[in-house]
Amino acid sequence: MIRVTIWNENWHERHDEHIRAVYPDGIHGQLAAVLGSEADFAIHTATLDEPEHGLTEAVLAETDVLIWWAHVKHAEVSDKVARRVQEHVLRGMGLIVLHSGHMSKPFLRLMGTSGTLSWRDGDRERVWTVLPTHPIAQGLPPYFELEVEEMYGEPFDIPQPDELVFISWFSGGEVFRSGCCWQRGYGRVFYFAPGHEEFPTYYNEHVGTVIRNAVRWAQPVLRRGDFACPNVTESPESRCSGRS
Amino acid sequence: MIRVTIWNENWHERHDEHIRAVYPDGIHGQLAAVLGSEADFAIHTATLDEPEHGLTEAVLAETDVLIWWAHVKHAEVSDKVARRVQEHVLRGMGLIVLHSGHMSKPFLRLMGTSGTLSWRDGDRERVWTVLPTHPIAQGLPPYFELEVEEMYGEPFDIPQPDELVFISWFSGGEVFRSGCCWQRGYGRVFYFAPGHEEFPTYYNEHVGTVIRNAVRWAQPVLRRGDFACPNVTESPESRCSGRS
Amino acid sequence: MIRVTIWNENWHERHDEHIRAVYPDGIHGQLAAVLGSEADFAIHTATLDEPEHGLTEAVLAETDVLIWWAHVKHAEVSDKVARRVQEHVLRGMGLIVLHSGHMSKPFLRLMGTSGTLSWRDGDRERVWTVLPTHPIAQGLPPYFELEVEEMYGEPFDIPQPDELVFISWFSGGEVFRSGCCWQRGYGRVFYFAPGHEEFPTYYNEHVGTVIRNAVRWAQPVLRRGDFACPNVTESPESRCSGRS
Amino acid sequence: MIRVTIWNENWHERHDEHIRAVYPDGIHGQLAAVLGSEADFAIHTATLDEPEHGLTEAVLAETDVLIWWAHVKHAEVSDKVARRVQEHVLRGMGLIVLHSGHMSKPFLRLMGTSGTLSWRDGDRERVWTVLPTHPIAQGLPPYFELEVEEMYGEPFDIPQPDELVFISWFSGGEVFRSGCCWQRGYGRVFYFAPGHEEFPTYYNEHVGTVIRNAVRWAQPVLRRGDFACPNVTESPESRCSGRS
Repeated sequence: MIRVTIWNENWHERHDEHIRAVYPDGIHGQLAAVLGSEADFAIHTATLDEPEHGLTEAVLAETDVLIWWAHVKHAEVSDKVARRVQEHVLRGMGLIVLHSGHMSKPFLRLMGTSGTLSWRDGDRERVWTVLPTHPIAQGLPPYFELEVEEMYGEPFDIPQPDELVFISWFSGGEVFRSGCCWQRGYGRVFYFAPGHEEFPTYYNEHVGTVIRNAVRWAQPVLRRGDFACPNVTESPESRCSGRS
Repeated sequence: MIRVTIWNENWHERHDEHIRAVYPDGIHGQLAAVLGSEADFAIHTATLDEPEHGLTEAVLAETDVLIWWAHVKHAEVSDKVARRVQEHVLRGMGLIVLHSGHMSKPFLRLMGTSGTLSWRDGDRERVWTVLPTHPIAQGLPPYFELEVEEMYGEPFDIPQPDELVFISWFSGGEVFRSGCCWQRGYGRVFYFAPGHEEFPTYYNEHVGTVIRNAVRWAQPVLRRGDFACPNVTESPESRCSGRS
Repeated sequence: MIRVTIWNENWHERHDEHIRAVYPDGIHGQLAAVLGSEADFAIHTATLDEPEHGLTEAVLAETDVLIWWAHVKHAEVSDKVARRVQEHVLRGMGLIVLHSGHMSKPFLRLMGTSGTLSWRDGDRERVWTVLPTHPIAQGLPPYFELEVEEMYGEPFDIPQPDELVFISWFSGGEVFRSGCCWQRGYGRVFYFAPGHEEFPTYYNEHVGTVIRNAVRWAQPVLRRGDFACPNVTESPESRCSGRS
Repeated sequence: MIRVTIWNENWHERHDEHIRAVYPDGIHGQLAAVLGSEADFAIHTATLDEPEHGLTEAVLAETDVLIWWAHVKHAEVSDKVARRVQEHVLRGMGLIVLHSGHMSKPFLRLMGTSGTLSWRDGDRERVWTVLPTHPIAQGLPPYFELEVEEMYGEPFDIPQPDELVFISWFSGGEVFRSGCCWQRGYGRVFYFAPGHEEFPTYYNEHVGTVIRNAVRWAQPVLRRGDFACPNVTESPESRCSGRS
């Protein structure tokens, strides 16, 4: 089983009826539905208002891949929990950061950059695959369209991705690196741009394929324990010197 | 002029006569001497005990390249100053992190990883250039030797370097990625491993060449102002639509 | 001086009056005009029909940066000259490949991939900078527009660029990695997509800035001699063993 | 099943009794034995002297991963077959290049560089993992030793690897990027340095683990057909314009 925790700040859905109309079960609820088709995914959800935002040591220790959606409440995520998420990624947990999560504490801690970009209200987005063999791009057409999505545009202040999988086109004239992969410590991080709360993006079949693929891609290969710097008192050569 | 600020925690030199004997003017003093040969370098030094560790907004605003040496006092660097250094790098300031600075707050904030590695007391190190055309490698032989240096060994928990310039060999049997480059925001970061306080590494002519080259490589191309996410209310297409 | 050789297959201009009307002095002639503003550029041109296509050992040995424009005559470039160009790049010569040069023999020999992409007749192109600090992007606005340009679209079969500088937007709905950098051996390679022969692209001020910047970026740091694999009969350790 | 073709120039084993004593069934025979433990590998071997070197269109069309060992007969591999191997890699076939294959025609065609390095007769090699989470590094200790192996040293003229997995240490004082990954077209390429014909390297358990892991890593995700540049006569926008 791949143990997935879906985290959502869960604010818009509770305070704006127009958003609630789009995501009556919350964005985390719809993301859970998107993943629900996979028999080998064990899905858990957590939200900002829970104690420790629902991301205790115990929860993260049992999480293989964490999905992060947030927009207006980044500052309310405690530094302690943000650091805990970062450390679990460095130990091997996968992290999928969606849409406005580009300004979330865990993402910025892992990237080291400002995460800034330009944006504009609803536009038509076309997501192009530029790395067709990447596991996250499997099962997709050469491009797919989102009738209405928030425009996120370059320059996007991120470290150069280890792998650039998607580039988005917007009818208003912008481009964006909308699907980016990084290795950080023992963990994998995937940023995917689509997913503004006003629009039914997470009902799109291709977006669902991307997120399901990303969960499989981001699952841990190894988990790491502490972050010590070991003092190697006995050198490899001293250990093998008898032989040479 | 390239305005260089050399920062040193300046602890060992003041509290251990053996270290003071190696660096009577402090490691920052010797680094200043190493850079002193360059007529177009304006050199400034700062240390941990100064107010704001000598790294005020005013000082960093006037710094093109910051050199960082620290070892046992990482925790005493305030988060406020560490964040300020990170932000100035993202705005364009170059950063050269030396030796045990791999565990310093500014470096870890910019990398997002744990910075951990393995280490062992004095060994002989041989620094090999693997990217001979890199600006930081100019004027060096194919390799150079440090009679006695602290062993730093793999695995080194860093994001994959944008450019890997040096790999070190140790007589005890280890290897290490000892010269690594990254772009972060508008700034460039270079990590260089040699430089344990007990040894006269910063008197080595080739080490001096590396550091002088790194200062030139890391100087800003552009400086950035704020870190806002601009709302593009008028799309490029709406602006040019009259023409097509 | 930076010694620049501009190479053009020079076919369309001589056989199609419409193209000749756009580039009466040939595309190479207009590229020479674009570079002519730089007092420290020594500009030479060469074309397909010259002996050895004007790219003799002597010419390449005196060339710091080679600019390549070709479209319908790739197959007429001799393998011998294509290999010679590749070898000079590996020795340190810079190479700037323009537009349909993505299918030229020298580019494909250096990339190792098929260079294929999708294309469509005249469209409006908007070139976005995604790496604002890159030397090739200096002096440009956040984006610039080409009223009419041939659409080149993803997927583009190239090795992942060492640095991705530009991404293009097309009004018809495509995106393209239109400015890509690679290091190959001792040489630097830059591919820049705009420049279809039917359109006045090389009269555009921003395109001129890109090409002038690229020449400066691609100039050699070092030149390499032969491509031997030296047999190191005396190891570094045997040389220094007296000391340890 | 993963269909693996092991290719060997098969010269030393037939013309030098000392090599035959090390590899009585040929290096390809021992590599087949190394892979034989995997129930889901279908193993085929081919050698230089066969018609078309045993690498016909039919054989490559049925090959998921090709392993290449060669040393003194690179020039005898026909350009036609070398190009065929390159094209199958670009279509999706995995390629594992061993030891002196760094100068083989298929590897150089895919890299675009000279492949040159420095070398020295038998030395002790220690292979360090620098990317512990990479699939090719699974099941290995932090490092493993080869009592006697040919020294391959930097600088190694290759494009910067997409992923650097192993760095080797040699008792004589050199280092080498001994495990490197690249994506080329739809195919994956892995270069692994150990494997000089005079030494029993391919009997080493850890070397066997690396090669088995590499076969799994390099298997195709997708296979590509032709290498055309499609003319997109109908733009995505014209196709969707009815909707917006």
